[in-house]
Amino acid sequence: MKVIKKIDIIGRGNVATHLYRALGNYDVTLINPHTLDGLDRNADIILISVTDRAIKEVSDKIGDTSAIVAHTSGTTPIQVLSKPGQKYGVFYPLQTFSKEVDIDYTRIPFFIEGADEETEKVLKQVAAQVSQTVYTADSEKRKIIHMASVFACNFINHLLGISNEILSKNSIPFSVLAPLINETIKKAVNTDNPHSVQTGPAVRGDEKIISSHMDMLEGHPDYQKLYMMLSDSIKQTRDKLKKRN
Amino acid sequence: MKVIKKIDIIGRGNVATHLYRALGNYDVTLINPHTLDGLDRNADIILISVTDRAIKEVSDKIGDTSAIVAHTSGTTPIQVLSKPGQKYGVFYPLQTFSKEVDIDYTRIPFFIEGADEETEKVLKQVAAQVSQTVYTADSEKRKIIHMASVFACNFINHLLGISNEILSKNSIPFSVLAPLINETIKKAVNTDNPHSVQTGPAVRGDEKIISSHMDMLEGHPDYQKLYMMLSDSIKQTRDKLKKRN
Repeated sequence: MKVIKKIDIIGRGNVATHLYRALGNYDVTLINPHTLDGLDRNADIILISVTDRAIKEVSDKIGDTSAIVAHTSGTTPIQVLSKPGQKYGVFYPLQTFSKEVDIDYTRIPFFIEGADEETEKVLKQVAAQVSQTVYTADSEKRKIIHMASVFACNFINHLLGISNEILSKNSIPFSVLAPLINETIKKAVNTDNPHSVQTGPAVRGDEKIISSHMDMLEGHPDYQKLYMMLSDSIKQTRDKLKKRN
Repeated sequence: MKVIKKIDIIGRGNVATHLYRALGNYDVTLINPHTLDGLDRNADIILISVTDRAIKEVSDKIGDTSAIVAHTSGTTPIQVLSKPGQKYGVFYPLQTFSKEVDIDYTRIPFFIEGADEETEKVLKQVAAQVSQTVYTADSEKRKIIHMASVFACNFINHLLGISNEILSKNSIPFSVLAPLINETIKKAVNTDNPHSVQTGPAVRGDEKIISSHMDMLEGHPDYQKLYMMLSDSIKQTRDKLKKRN
C-alpha cells in the first residue's frame, strides 16, 4: 500500500482546523477554500472540509489531481466527488467540534468510504493514525448515523436548554443538574437499550405529577406540547417493551 | 446545635440503600418499611425513603417520636409529615440511583427543607457530611428542580433510546455515538445557556436534511412527529435569541 506523506486540508472551519491538528504526524497544510492558495495537486491526499453545499464547487476548482480527494461530511454522498480517473472517498469524523475545546482525537469515531478498495484502505490507514475507532460506512450508513446523532445530540442539547430556562427563571443554577445528567448519560450508554432504564413520571404512569408539571408550564404552550408528546412516546415505548417481554 | 449520632432509614429501594451507604459515619440502621421492625423512635433522625404515595402511611405508622422525621422525595410537600409537636423536614438527594452503580456521593446535590429553623440546620449539617453541594429548597423550588430534571434526564434518556433503535436496526453499535454525546453534554453544562451552542440541521434551517430525515423515518409516524416538533422548537428558540441580541 502506498505510503502517505503529504495531506492538504481545504477549509477554515472547526473540522478543518481540528483535522489539521489531529493529522500532525503527516506533512499537512491547511488551505484557504476560497483561493486554494498553495494547494499541492501532487499531495497524497486532499481533504475537502467545507460546508456541504460548497463541496462540489471546491472539488471542481481542484481540477485534475493525482491525490485521493475526500470530503469530511456525514450527509453528503461520495458521488459528489466522482470524476473520470479520480481516486475519491469520504473521511468523516463523528464529533461536535468547537474551536476552543481540546479534544482527545483517539476516541473520535471515523467513518470511511472509498470509491475503490485501495482508496478505502489508504483512508482507513490514515484515520487509524488518529483514532482507535475507525469504521467503514457507505453513504447510506453515514446518513443513518447522522440522523441518530440528531436525536442523541441536537435534540438533547435543546432539552438541556429548556431545562436551564426553567431553572434560571427561578434563580436556580443549572449546575445543580450536572451530576444527575452525567449519571443519566453514563447509565444510558452502558446499557444495550436506554429504553430499558427509563425513569420518571411518564414511564411510571404518574398522571398526578404529569398534570402538576403541565400547570407549572402554563404560559409555555410549546413546552407543554413537547412535554406531553415526549411523555406519550415514553408510555408507548414502555407498552411495546412490555408486550415483547 | 444538637449532635447527631443515630439515623434510622426506612425503605428498601435504591435511594434508601444508597443513603445507608453514604451516611456510614453515623450509627445508621436500614428499616423494613412494611414492618418497621427495629425502628428506634429515640433515634436523632428518621428518614422515610419510600415511594411518594407511601410516605404518609409510613409517617402515621411511626407515631410519636422525638426524632426529626424527614422524607427524601423531590415531589412531595413537606406538610405531609406535619404533626403537633413533631420536628420534620425534607432530605432530598437529586440523583438517579441504580443498585449496581458506585456513586461519588460528595458530588450529589442535596435539597433540604425544615419545618423550623433548627431542624433545617440539623438536616443541612448531616447532608454536608455526605455532599459538597447542599442547598435549602422549599417544596415549590423542589418541584421546579424536579420538572427541570424530567426535561434534562427522563426525556434525554428517551431520545437516547430512539437513537439506539435507529442505529441497531441498521446493525450499527450505539457506542459509536458515545464520544459525541459526552462532548455535547460537556459543552451544554459548561455554558450559561445551552441554546446558544445549539448545532444541527434545525438551527441551521437546513430543510433539505430535515426532509431527508423525515423520509428515513417513514413507518415511524410517532418519531416523525417528535422530530418535527423538536426541530420547530429549536427554530423558534433560535429566532427568539436572535431578536434579543
